[in-house]
Amino acid sequence: MIPRYSRPDMVAIWEPATKFKIWYEIEAHACDAMADLGVIPRENADAVWKAKDVEFDVARIDEIEAVTKHDVIAFLTHLAEHVGSDEARFVHQGMTSSDVLDTCFNVQLVRASDILIKDMDALLAALKKRALEHKNTVRVGRSHGIHAEPTTMGLTFARFYAEMDRNLARLKAARAEIATGAISGAVGTFANVDPRVEEHVCEKLGLSPEPISTQVIPRDRHAMFFSVLGVIASSIENVAIEIRHMQRTEVLEGAEFFSMGQKGSSAMPHKKNPVLTENLTGLARLVRMSVVPAMENVALWHERDISHSSVERTIGPDTTITLDFALNRLTGVVDKMLIFPDNMLENMNKFPGLVMSQRVLLALTQAGVSREDAYAMVQRNALKVWEFRVDFQEQLLADKDVVAALGEDGIKAKFDMEYHTKHVDTIFKRVFGA
Amino acid sequence: MIPRYSRPDMVAIWEPATKFKIWYEIEAHACDAMADLGVIPRENADAVWKAKDVEFDVARIDEIEAVTKHDVIAFLTHLAEHVGSDEARFVHQGMTSSDVLDTCFNVQLVRASDILIKDMDALLAALKKRALEHKNTVRVGRSHGIHAEPTTMGLTFARFYAEMDRNLARLKAARAEIATGAISGAVGTFANVDPRVEEHVCEKLGLSPEPISTQVIPRDRHAMFFSVLGVIASSIENVAIEIRHMQRTEVLEGAEFFSMGQKGSSAMPHKKNPVLTENLTGLARLVRMSVVPAMENVALWHERDISHSSVERTIGPDTTITLDFALNRLTGVVDKMLIFPDNMLENMNKFPGLVMSQRVLLALTQAGVSREDAYAMVQRNALKVWEFRVDFQEQLLADKDVVAALGEDGIKAKFDMEYHTKHVDTIFKRVFGA
Amino acid sequence: MIPRYSRPDMVAIWEPATKFKIWYEIEAHACDAMADLGVIPRENADAVWKAKDVEFDVARIDEIEAVTKHDVIAFLTHLAEHVGSDEARFVHQGMTSSDVLDTCFNVQLVRASDILIKDMDALLAALKKRALEHKNTVRVGRSHGIHAEPTTMGLTFARFYAEMDRNLARLKAARAEIATGAISGAVGTFANVDPRVEEHVCEKLGLSPEPISTQVIPRDRHAMFFSVLGVIASSIENVAIEIRHMQRTEVLEGAEFFSMGQKGSSAMPHKKNPVLTENLTGLARLVRMSVVPAMENVALWHERDISHSSVERTIGPDTTITLDFALNRLTGVVDKMLIFPDNMLENMNKFPGLVMSQRVLLALTQAGVSREDAYAMVQRNALKVWEFRVDFQEQLLADKDVVAALGEDGIKAKFDMEYHTKHVDTIFKRVFGA
Amino acid sequence: MIPRYSRPDMVAIWEPATKFKIWYEIEAHACDAMADLGVIPRENADAVWKAKDVEFDVARIDEIEAVTKHDVIAFLTHLAEHVGSDEARFVHQGMTSSDVLDTCFNVQLVRASDILIKDMDALLAALKKRALEHKNTVRVGRSHGIHAEPTTMGLTFARFYAEMDRNLARLKAARAEIATGAISGAVGTFANVDPRVEEHVCEKLGLSPEPISTQVIPRDRHAMFFSVLGVIASSIENVAIEIRHMQRTEVLEGAEFFSMGQKGSSAMPHKKNPVLTENLTGLARLVRMSVVPAMENVALWHERDISHSSVERTIGPDTTITLDFALNRLTGVVDKMLIFPDNMLENMNKFPGLVMSQRVLLALTQAGVSREDAYAMVQRNALKVWEFRVDFQEQLLADKDVVAALGEDGIKAKFDMEYHTKHVDTIFKRVFGA
Repeated sequence: MIPRYSRPDMVAIWEPATKFKIWYEIEAHACDAMADLGVIPRENADAVWKAKDVEFDVARIDEIEAVTKHDVIAFLTHLAEHVGSDEARFVHQGMTSSDVLDTCFNVQLVRASDILIKDMDALLAALKKRALEHKNTVRVGRSHGIHAEPTTMGLTFARFYAEMDRNLARLKAARAEIATGAISGAVGTFANVDPRVEEHVCEKLGLSPEPISTQVIPRDRHAMFFSVLGVIASSIENVAIEIRHMQRTEVLEGAEFFSMGQKGSSAMPHKKNPVLTENLTGLARLVRMSVVPAMENVALWHERDISHSSVERTIGPDTTITLDFALNRLTGVVDKMLIFPDNMLENMNKFPGLVMSQRVLLALTQAGVSREDAYAMVQRNALKVWEFRVDFQEQLLADKDVVAALGEDGIKAKFDMEYHTKHVDTIFKRVFGA
Repeated sequence: MIPRYSRPDMVAIWEPATKFKIWYEIEAHACDAMADLGVIPRENADAVWKAKDVEFDVARIDEIEAVTKHDVIAFLTHLAEHVGSDEARFVHQGMTSSDVLDTCFNVQLVRASDILIKDMDALLAALKKRALEHKNTVRVGRSHGIHAEPTTMGLTFARFYAEMDRNLARLKAARAEIATGAISGAVGTFANVDPRVEEHVCEKLGLSPEPISTQVIPRDRHAMFFSVLGVIASSIENVAIEIRHMQRTEVLEGAEFFSMGQKGSSAMPHKKNPVLTENLTGLARLVRMSVVPAMENVALWHERDISHSSVERTIGPDTTITLDFALNRLTGVVDKMLIFPDNMLENMNKFPGLVMSQRVLLALTQAGVSREDAYAMVQRNALKVWEFRVDFQEQLLADKDVVAALGEDGIKAKFDMEYHTKHVDTIFKRVFGA
Repeated sequence: MIPRYSRPDMVAIWEPATKFKIWYEIEAHACDAMADLGVIPRENADAVWKAKDVEFDVARIDEIEAVTKHDVIAFLTHLAEHVGSDEARFVHQGMTSSDVLDTCFNVQLVRASDILIKDMDALLAALKKRALEHKNTVRVGRSHGIHAEPTTMGLTFARFYAEMDRNLARLKAARAEIATGAISGAVGTFANVDPRVEEHVCEKLGLSPEPISTQVIPRDRHAMFFSVLGVIASSIENVAIEIRHMQRTEVLEGAEFFSMGQKGSSAMPHKKNPVLTENLTGLARLVRMSVVPAMENVALWHERDISHSSVERTIGPDTTITLDFALNRLTGVVDKMLIFPDNMLENMNKFPGLVMSQRVLLALTQAGVSREDAYAMVQRNALKVWEFRVDFQEQLLADKDVVAALGEDGIKAKFDMEYHTKHVDTIFKRVFGA
Repeated sequence: MIPRYSRPDMVAIWEPATKFKIWYEIEAHACDAMADLGVIPRENADAVWKAKDVEFDVARIDEIEAVTKHDVIAFLTHLAEHVGSDEARFVHQGMTSSDVLDTCFNVQLVRASDILIKDMDALLAALKKRALEHKNTVRVGRSHGIHAEPTTMGLTFARFYAEMDRNLARLKAARAEIATGAISGAVGTFANVDPRVEEHVCEKLGLSPEPISTQVIPRDRHAMFFSVLGVIASSIENVAIEIRHMQRTEVLEGAEFFSMGQKGSSAMPHKKNPVLTENLTGLARLVRMSVVPAMENVALWHERDISHSSVERTIGPDTTITLDFALNRLTGVVDKMLIFPDNMLENMNKFPGLVMSQRVLLALTQAGVSREDAYAMVQRNALKVWEFRVDFQEQLLADKDVVAALGEDGIKAKFDMEYHTKHVDTIFKRVFGA
């Protein structure tokens, strides 16, 4: 976790204090359930709730852990310091450390998901706003980096919206994947703890009971979770690359926001760098790198080995913090980015009118010209545009074979931009609904 | 694709002949829609269906492609050889090659998914059968490769069932991700083709129209698809590793099937190697390796670049073929694997009775012995078992402090195996339903 | 392996016939060594060489394998059909299958390396040729896709040369990594085969004896080998991305070769797509995806498990074939690519003269103008260029404060291009030597 | 970076204070070189060295950066606070930020390498010690987790030694890869800074001048560097998995150190978990996950984009810190691990004598028994051992066909353990030298 690429709410989820609070809630709810079942005295369960508003002393717990060499025992010892050692004696009864650790980890991932879902909502709103704003702002579509046919800037934003909307659905599914808890004991048999304890704790924490756990919650769930984050990161990269291309000196159809008045690089707007989207490209790689280790974590030995733990201690916080930061940064970029419609037209006319050459070719064949002749007609005019940057339409109007085939009005009609934008409404309706 | 790791039905999906058949269907349905819309003559659309039962000549298409340097044009040229060049002149009108290629690729992935779903059903059936069969076959549960508490072999199969059942749900979601088609033209604006053509073709092929495409269908869908295959592969590895552990000479609680009668390695059953599950471990790596390139494919330049194509030509067939083979192999292994209950008991008693030491410790403290004294009592007896392999229960019965605390019957009761299996029914109900 | 992305020499290395030939050589040389050591009769060793020029019948071996279920035994059986079953009875004595398989795999990787080294030599030659040719062809340097200061096209080729030259060195080191053989028996103890047999076989095959093997040659060697291929692939992507950028419609400083005369896309040169370099971008992902599984292959259980095998059967051929194809394709692209120096100048002057703004800023401060004033002077003139595309030098010459500070000649001197190219010779000397 | 998986010396390399110190040295040496070249006054260069022993105030630099939004400018401003703003005015002249950042990053990686090399030396020493100690401690060799033939524990350590020794060589090569510096200006042309400045700075910092840089040092170097760390991590995993297998309850041939006297899990030595090596398995995944992003960093746009930066800010520290910790932890484990030779013999005799069955089979055929008969003889005796755990040698001695073929002494001779260890000396000589 790099401070400059992190936001406080997400960081807070992964702080020791938060973790201990969640551990506390798991233990306290478990005591409640055990008291209800008559397994432990009700007053002991009630006593645990005395610590409800305690801010646990992380340094003190660390101190105890330095002696006990066991984090959960250290926490329980510290808890007893608040609750009273006698009152606390039934806490954690029949449970295993992983019951607490794994359930807590999933609570943290669920909370992280909730932040990411909000991030995604904000990003979608920004994308939608810009899509509507530039719905009909004409821009050349490019395949292979080469001009193809006209499209609109609004369609560009709309497709990123649609992609991120799919990601939102994936994220919600990923949240459901890891929204489970387990209180099932040393090898998952509930030998020393009633399954109803698990049910109660999960209900209180907004989780489902894991149908079958061993000592741990199965890690295919987490592999799926981090895979979804990796897909989202790849979509962030997709948007970032588009914006970086827009901002190239030669293209300049859009740019990360800068104000002309301000000092700094804005003194030389031609040197304003797309550093935020370049940064997002790098952050996407960082999020994505957690996918393979999360998958390698699935095959634990027998009822568990602890190889997954160090991986998760790292990728749990790092990946969610980075993705939260990245989504937020991207939302800011999209929301405020500069769009240069004049440059779009200028770019489209780099070879004036040539972007319509395929439509002219099609029209010629439809008018009965043989494929070969049509090709030759387009080619001899296109080459002049390519070489001398003259206007394609004018060349065609001066070519008597083309005029013979299409007529002057027919030629001019092929340069009608609305031909290309006539279905934008249809597409927007598909993407944004009515 | 390695022949020895492939099955014919999945291979068939990726053969050129299948691809051309799908291309044909896309073009023919598109013609139908265009005829219905009055864009092309009905008789031309009808004429295309004359080729309905044609087996396209792959060699001939390759021959044409060698000249045209374009696969779709080569196919269309060949199609015209069947339909008649005049009749075929409206085929593909207003469409772009990617309309055909991308829609076809998704049809192939959908078909591949359908095979994988069937594979998964078979695997689930095998896992369930073995789970029920060994529901109460007692086996030591292990954390860190070290004996912990008893569990049952049925629970092991049941947890693999639950994991694979989640994978089945993921697979169905992944199928839905890529079950879209696009006929939207050069940059996705439908400039030269009506959106209703796309709707008709998709309906006929069992796809949804892609809400917004560029020249291509967005690749976040495919990234998600291959990620799910990667998770499934990781679960396969999980089961494979468990079986490999079982079959170790020292463990021998289960083994890939071999018949004592047959010659070969069965001459020396102690040398029967778990080669199928080792192979599955490797195949899992192969499936998983497609995840990162599939994610790298998402960020195409502008309305498309073709960098994704070579990746998909490889991972499309290779990953689905390998996973199909792996799922099938795993089903065979699970279905027929040998289970050795006697060895399970023998292993559990490697240090006789010691697996119950924690329960005894718990009982002592519950009986009012101080934590420290309880520890000492268990330790002094456990060490003898560790060193001399004597029976733990007998040691305890001979230790008057322990007897004083728990009573002889109390001690014996702690070695009751049903204590550990009492919730197996509950768990099975959770996993398999009523 | 995709036929369209493969070349015959590399494919041949991985064909069954080649493999069997190598197996044969290993066995025959081993017999020689055993005869020299007096372990087997000399005439039996000599007899094996009768098969020296035999083309082994792959179909026949497959047929035998279908019965024996063991590839090495099938081969040995077939070999006996050529040599005579009695004469062949000492072949493979004391050896284990892996002795043959692993040594053969390394022979294949060595041969693959030799082809890749030749590929790299050709690529270096092409890069050098183009570097020298365009040593002084001025081009704007870009950071963040934004114009920075002038550089030359020759320097671009020279840095790719330097990078590929490092890759050549890495490739040679990688070749050395896997140029080992092992004939050490079932667990690597030489229990049934003398170490001198290994020494002899390795010497004959151009390998070093593996200092310590188990049943297999250690896989850290192969992990390193495939990592180097992954780095080379990443460098290919680096060059490919540069060329794709060059060829963008708005940039057009270079392009993959096309001939104006020919038909096809050249009819519309503005639509000539950089499909080869886009393809290379995808192929780079394919080569790179073998790195992680090769690393996962390192941790085999005890003296070996066979999980690595399926991975290597795939990535061995696929990765070397793809890289060979990619290097060769890149060489062709570089060798023949079109370079457009006029467009480079035009691009540099998109905002006329503005590329020199930082040098002017520096000159002003060096002339004693305060940093703040210097900034303001550059800014007010730069903004006019940005907005109205007027000439920066002319603006400066019309700004009396700037003239006062630098003089007219001083201003003009700052637009001297040789200032930026004065060290090109030095750099070329570093890269290419004298 | 997780504190619990880090060691102070490596952490210190990546602290802001260290970074600023290196930046300072780069700038000060550059001033020296410029003064020597007569580009700036000697007294200004000398003045910079006044700050030689200054501990830069990180908080103050952060404060300035919050205003300037530029880390290098913030540092230079702070430096001027120490040196005097007039004296400092030539610092950084003609240089670009990346000259400082990239050169500094490589200095940090070089220092990190030096620590890792020392770690590796210590690990090699521990492995060698244990190899010599258990050179002749007999242990069963296992392929596929199944008993094969005898080997020794010393050979196991020796092969890990050989593997890590290769890794040491790779690490040294990786260090050389990134031991370069660049002071070449905005696009690498040395337009505003003499190449001799770069030479001087590099010499002082123990680096080589990068032969050709752009704005940045080429990233193929770093891709190679992190790949080597990934290979080393895979070897760590290899050793860790072996130890985890050894410590399984059923195997127990070795274990991570624990003292019988101490409290805690040692109370129940049968429950002592291999948590350190399990942790190493996870740490290996973490180190390895940096390889792909490091490779994705190679293809920067034109003379640089900044996408690599966030990746390197993370993987630079995280990967070196984790690997340093992992190597050190592994050294501790190897150095102190418990070895249980008696259990090795017991395991080898799980099916008493059966490990010699292949040797007996070989002997029978060499004695002239037909392959088929030999097989039958071994099988009928082996099956009894498999089923009833009787002694294989005794069975053979009671089988008159076998006795007829081999004689009693001949049978007994096949159970001679020295047959398997006779070449251990040879192998040790290969690995450790004379």
